[in-house]
Amino acid sequence: MILVVTANPALDVTYTVPVLTPGTMSRASSVHRRAGGKGVNVARVLHALGAPTLALVPCGGGDGRLVGADLAAAGLPHELSSIAGPTRRTVTILSAADGTVTLVNEPGPLVSASEWDAVVSAVRRRVPRASALVCAGSLPPGAPVDGYAELIDLARQGGVPTVLDTSGEALLAGIAAGPDLVKPNATELCEATGTDDPLTGALRMRARGARTVFVSLGAEGMLAVTDGAAWRAGVPRRLRGNTTGAGDAAVAGASMELAARRPWPEVLRSAVSVSSASVLGAYAGDLDLDHHRREHRAVIVEEIHAARVDV
Amino acid sequence: MILVVTANPALDVTYTVPVLTPGTMSRASSVHRRAGGKGVNVARVLHALGAPTLALVPCGGGDGRLVGADLAAAGLPHELSSIAGPTRRTVTILSAADGTVTLVNEPGPLVSASEWDAVVSAVRRRVPRASALVCAGSLPPGAPVDGYAELIDLARQGGVPTVLDTSGEALLAGIAAGPDLVKPNATELCEATGTDDPLTGALRMRARGARTVFVSLGAEGMLAVTDGAAWRAGVPRRLRGNTTGAGDAAVAGASMELAARRPWPEVLRSAVSVSSASVLGAYAGDLDLDHHRREHRAVIVEEIHAARVDV
Repeated sequence: MILVVTANPALDVTYTVPVLTPGTMSRASSVHRRAGGKGVNVARVLHALGAPTLALVPCGGGDGRLVGADLAAAGLPHELSSIAGPTRRTVTILSAADGTVTLVNEPGPLVSASEWDAVVSAVRRRVPRASALVCAGSLPPGAPVDGYAELIDLARQGGVPTVLDTSGEALLAGIAAGPDLVKPNATELCEATGTDDPLTGALRMRARGARTVFVSLGAEGMLAVTDGAAWRAGVPRRLRGNTTGAGDAAVAGASMELAARRPWPEVLRSAVSVSSASVLGAYAGDLDLDHHRREHRAVIVEEIHAARVDV
Repeated sequence: MILVVTANPALDVTYTVPVLTPGTMSRASSVHRRAGGKGVNVARVLHALGAPTLALVPCGGGDGRLVGADLAAAGLPHELSSIAGPTRRTVTILSAADGTVTLVNEPGPLVSASEWDAVVSAVRRRVPRASALVCAGSLPPGAPVDGYAELIDLARQGGVPTVLDTSGEALLAGIAAGPDLVKPNATELCEATGTDDPLTGALRMRARGARTVFVSLGAEGMLAVTDGAAWRAGVPRRLRGNTTGAGDAAVAGASMELAARRPWPEVLRSAVSVSSASVLGAYAGDLDLDHHRREHRAVIVEEIHAARVDV
């Protein structure tokens, strides 16, 4: 079972409007609500891929109840821990005229020390039977900035592979614990390392503790850097669709292979294939499973010359 | 007591973001939630003006509970009627960089025949002690399109003055019942009457049943047309601020004077003064009461030559 921690889950609400024009009022022609947050999306994709998973989700308030109800309705194995503050929302506005997707994210409720301890305890209890631990998304206000580092330590002590997908301070503090895989996008990598060159940034992230770094580069595919080796991977044909959640799908694809202790080029291939298949899904956490199965072997994985990697 | 019906209330959620750029993700630096919908805003302004009011609000679901709790916290006299569907949200995104306000409105829950009957019953029970009836905002899905007409009929039978502020089909069906005052903005008037000339539109609305029409023209002030007379009104100095809810404030100012059976030029003056003072309030339903008291007499009200009115 792949244990997925969503420290700061959300009720994702998607409004479809005719066209989003700043400074005007739009009536939503449809409103779609479901459980979200990076980790929930990762767990949802793992579940769709047939990989056993368990989502750990601290929830509170009315929207927290809706998150729990949606996870149950989706048949997604999960463990909720109760918090006093109300679970946040993320608002997605889909402009039907041009397909533009605009997001506004609430910061999330303040989590108390004892509420965070409950998350740590749940990981401690569950991790002995886990094949991998995934920590995904932002930390809520109130959680310790090295909160993910503590969870990664717990998994490492048990020999369980770890994946970290977060940003900012939580990312910098988390990589110090030596996660097996970190998956920043180009923006997150630049913020964390101060360079906009993906290879240089990935090397800097390795120097700070990350064992392997996958940098998602949108339509340009993905760059992977590990100990003494690096690869670029991409799909032969660019897909159009909903790129929200494509990074979460990449984490799911990679985690599935990492849990099976597969070699890095295969972990990378699945990350790219699942991410690509997710672009054809309607919402974050959805994917076109047939597309993944059909196109998985068509992903191009190329090793990058070692001279550049050992900079 | 001025009875205010909000058939389709909302939880108004305002997100402040650094800048709203379509196609990107923004983190909200603040989230403000409160009870809203046109009628709730009208009642809130009446309450601030010291005018006795009662807000009738059908509510359901988690956001409905938040609406009720917020009305109670504001000390606003209200009567909730319970509905099965969840009360809608309106999402306001305030772009801090340029002050641009962008709104996305949910359509609202489906209201059953018996739930609508409960609203009608509440009006029937309360209207004998009312000094005016205000019907404001959209009708929820499921309510009869002539829902406001039925409420206006009840008030007319009791000799209670009536104010209607809605749009589209609900407006056209409502004016057939002969409300004493209708307050469309220029867009609503054009949609309902097919002309973008405010005077022509107001005359057409009178021909369809409205006794008096106030057309709100934004910074251009307001046009009033009644039986054989018309006025233009405006403020001497244009104010900058939050124009969301300025129309609702105009309805509140007008209703207060109409309930006191004041002459139309004075009703118009208060509509303009209160609307203008609301622009200085932080959120829809707020107003700068001192500004209204100080500037009330400075509102310019000019009669329009009768030859043009009797077209």
